[in-house]
Amino acid sequence: MSGCPYGGGQPGTAPDAVPTVSAQGDAPASRMSRRGLLALAGVGGAGALAGVAAGLLSQDALAAVAAPAEAGTNDVVPFHGAIQAGITTAAQDRLHMAAFDVITEDRAALIKLLKDWTAAAEAMSQGRETGTTGAVNGPYDAPPEDTGEAMGLSAGKLTVTFAFGAGLFEKDGKVRFGLDGRRPDALIDLPHFPGDDLQPNRSGGDIIVQACADDPQVAVHAIRNLARIGFGTVRVRWSQLGFGRTSSTSRSQQTPRNLFGFKDGTNNLKAEDTDLLNEHVWAGPGTRDGEAWMQGGSYLVARRIRMHIEIWDRTSLREQEGLIGRTKSEGSPLSGGKEFTAPDFAIKGKDGEPLIGMDAHVRLAHADQNDGVRMLRRGYNYTDGSDGLGHLDAGLFFVAFVKDPRTHYVPMQMAMAKEDTLALEYLKHTGSALAAVPPGVQPGGFIGEGLFT
Amino acid sequence: MSGCPYGGGQPGTAPDAVPTVSAQGDAPASRMSRRGLLALAGVGGAGALAGVAAGLLSQDALAAVAAPAEAGTNDVVPFHGAIQAGITTAAQDRLHMAAFDVITEDRAALIKLLKDWTAAAEAMSQGRETGTTGAVNGPYDAPPEDTGEAMGLSAGKLTVTFAFGAGLFEKDGKVRFGLDGRRPDALIDLPHFPGDDLQPNRSGGDIIVQACADDPQVAVHAIRNLARIGFGTVRVRWSQLGFGRTSSTSRSQQTPRNLFGFKDGTNNLKAEDTDLLNEHVWAGPGTRDGEAWMQGGSYLVARRIRMHIEIWDRTSLREQEGLIGRTKSEGSPLSGGKEFTAPDFAIKGKDGEPLIGMDAHVRLAHADQNDGVRMLRRGYNYTDGSDGLGHLDAGLFFVAFVKDPRTHYVPMQMAMAKEDTLALEYLKHTGSALAAVPPGVQPGGFIGEGLFT
Repeated sequence: MSGCPYGGGQPGTAPDAVPTVSAQGDAPASRMSRRGLLALAGVGGAGALAGVAAGLLSQDALAAVAAPAEAGTNDVVPFHGAIQAGITTAAQDRLHMAAFDVITEDRAALIKLLKDWTAAAEAMSQGRETGTTGAVNGPYDAPPEDTGEAMGLSAGKLTVTFAFGAGLFEKDGKVRFGLDGRRPDALIDLPHFPGDDLQPNRSGGDIIVQACADDPQVAVHAIRNLARIGFGTVRVRWSQLGFGRTSSTSRSQQTPRNLFGFKDGTNNLKAEDTDLLNEHVWAGPGTRDGEAWMQGGSYLVARRIRMHIEIWDRTSLREQEGLIGRTKSEGSPLSGGKEFTAPDFAIKGKDGEPLIGMDAHVRLAHADQNDGVRMLRRGYNYTDGSDGLGHLDAGLFFVAFVKDPRTHYVPMQMAMAKEDTLALEYLKHTGSALAAVPPGVQPGGFIGEGLFT
Repeated sequence: MSGCPYGGGQPGTAPDAVPTVSAQGDAPASRMSRRGLLALAGVGGAGALAGVAAGLLSQDALAAVAAPAEAGTNDVVPFHGAIQAGITTAAQDRLHMAAFDVITEDRAALIKLLKDWTAAAEAMSQGRETGTTGAVNGPYDAPPEDTGEAMGLSAGKLTVTFAFGAGLFEKDGKVRFGLDGRRPDALIDLPHFPGDDLQPNRSGGDIIVQACADDPQVAVHAIRNLARIGFGTVRVRWSQLGFGRTSSTSRSQQTPRNLFGFKDGTNNLKAEDTDLLNEHVWAGPGTRDGEAWMQGGSYLVARRIRMHIEIWDRTSLREQEGLIGRTKSEGSPLSGGKEFTAPDFAIKGKDGEPLIGMDAHVRLAHADQNDGVRMLRRGYNYTDGSDGLGHLDAGLFFVAFVKDPRTHYVPMQMAMAKEDTLALEYLKHTGSALAAVPPGVQPGGFIGEGLFT
């Protein structure tokens, strides 16, 4: 760093006269981190779901797991369980998602990576450091096992969710890692949607990792340490920071606003909707030969959607509300009622036109228009600097979990891309990824192990 | 958005059975925003410093203003005052900084912009919307005066700090806006520093705006609305999100960690150091003809510093600590003591070498090595996706406020760029800006008005 990042104390500035910090410094010789101490306090809650399931689960068991964890004694989200954390977990405030390409063809190296990542993800989600010695307790002449920037921070409700892209199964026409016939049918190559302007360096990836936390430093630390652990085995293909959630995944949460200024995801599936989750989010067996390693899994769709906010901001409130089909203030359907009132698509105004227009997004996106399909969305607002043309590069990093993208994403997105005025005039998809989310991990197991047995 | 962002209620999902939200929806017809209501509650505190100064201030008065605001009744940071908020304000958690190029040569248009921006910044920092009608209360057939994504959020301790780059005074050899002779002597063109790899689209800018808040959505909303207000007058040149602070600017704050995993800014100047702030941060009159419009101002240095974290992460703990000159765990000087103990550069170890090495960053950056100069730093950790080469693009967005960059930044940075092993091997400067920070605004005034009178 330039400047004086680590500039020492000015003689005479009485460093000992700073009570809040000297209390922290009372044990300077000890290398026990405060993060370690915090984590110890949370261990009781961390394994709460560990015993729920020891194998593939019935839909009832899945439903039980899908219920939100009890209001915590801590900010630790349990890592182990029949499903992965970070799907129905009440959406945390911040996201760091990364896509990795696997640069080895060695099956054993891949399995070792997945085991190491599982251990690291479990540790970090409990507020512990990675490795056995963390950032400061290892051999002095070796690189630390944790990068250290989360020392002193709490677990921050960190969840680390893993998903496998098509490139893990086959690439350039070749089967990889002995996974012949194991690629799930539902793990398709997404079609080109009208208007797509996908950038290769923002799309794809063999393994997608979603880190969510209430503290962005915790989420960034998680991805960074997985990248560190994977050095030589994986490369970062893309990464995306989401600064603010645009979805609620629990009825305990308020509906947040996207960068159009509208409440987003009012009708999102929630953790409490256990039957609907079973119907729309949790995958069936789904692989080509009917094997069940995806039972309890799901499919992650990520789309980086640039919003033309400068154009939007010069659009009248009438047009904005008409395009969405809801009021900007409360998010109520234009057909009347409150935010959570069901929209009435038939009711007409004095002019004889439907109060919710035929091209309103709320109509086109509604389950009734889409064979009844729903999804669990978990998107985030992003802003990534300037576009070089005088505008902010900002928008929505769309994340959704669905039972099967062939039925639950592609048809809806195809319709949107063709008919939705909002999508046509104000949105541009610049990144895309689809990946199979394996079920959760049991103690002693590792992520995706069903794929390698 | 693809998916069902605004998907309406599924018939039969009993929307009225959601207690937390129906309480909020009790007044669906009203367009009074919750943000507006929140702001009303905070108005008492918002003007607390308003009466402090009515003109140029003595150093005593500046010192009084520099003291941190009383622990607030709210999360509102006063906007008016002799100095701008966002310098000595206890560093908020998140940053959105943007550089704008002024694309008009019309002096009246520039003054109007500065007046409009002042009004908007004041409103937003008090948790109010921009304009008189905000996001939802204006004419239905006009674009809203506020973009709305901060509705429902608190003020989040937002500060908006403005600074003028050299390009506001002259560009391409031509004086702009009648500001002949008004460019401060201290507002130099920064020299090229060895190792600089500056990207034009991350550097410079006629007007720099720093928005800091504890909620990133609030900071992003602020910059975005200034861009909206400035449409046709300014263009966004670059913008930078900082996800986590790396500096403390008040003794009430814990020292945060940078992405090297070390505590950063232990010895930073703090709001409480009134004499040192007068000596090192607040600018003198400084303009070429001795006029005093910068009295109470400062100079902002912004440097986007990419960290080679992958290399750092493969460096031994011994080398990391040696390069910094402090322990990774507590941030104590390697010469002994606790975090805030003054480093002893003379004391030697058993091997006869200084415990704090000759090339340790803490030594090279220390005031004793730099003619006694200090700075007030206000930097943030950033991560901006991948670099396309398999690595995260992450590092430090360095922000500092200094009395005069000729004495308080350039010599130190030149020495660092030449001698500091840390800087040479692990850092790369990819963006740069220097701007003159005018003094604060009094009620009825506008930012930088001293420059136009």
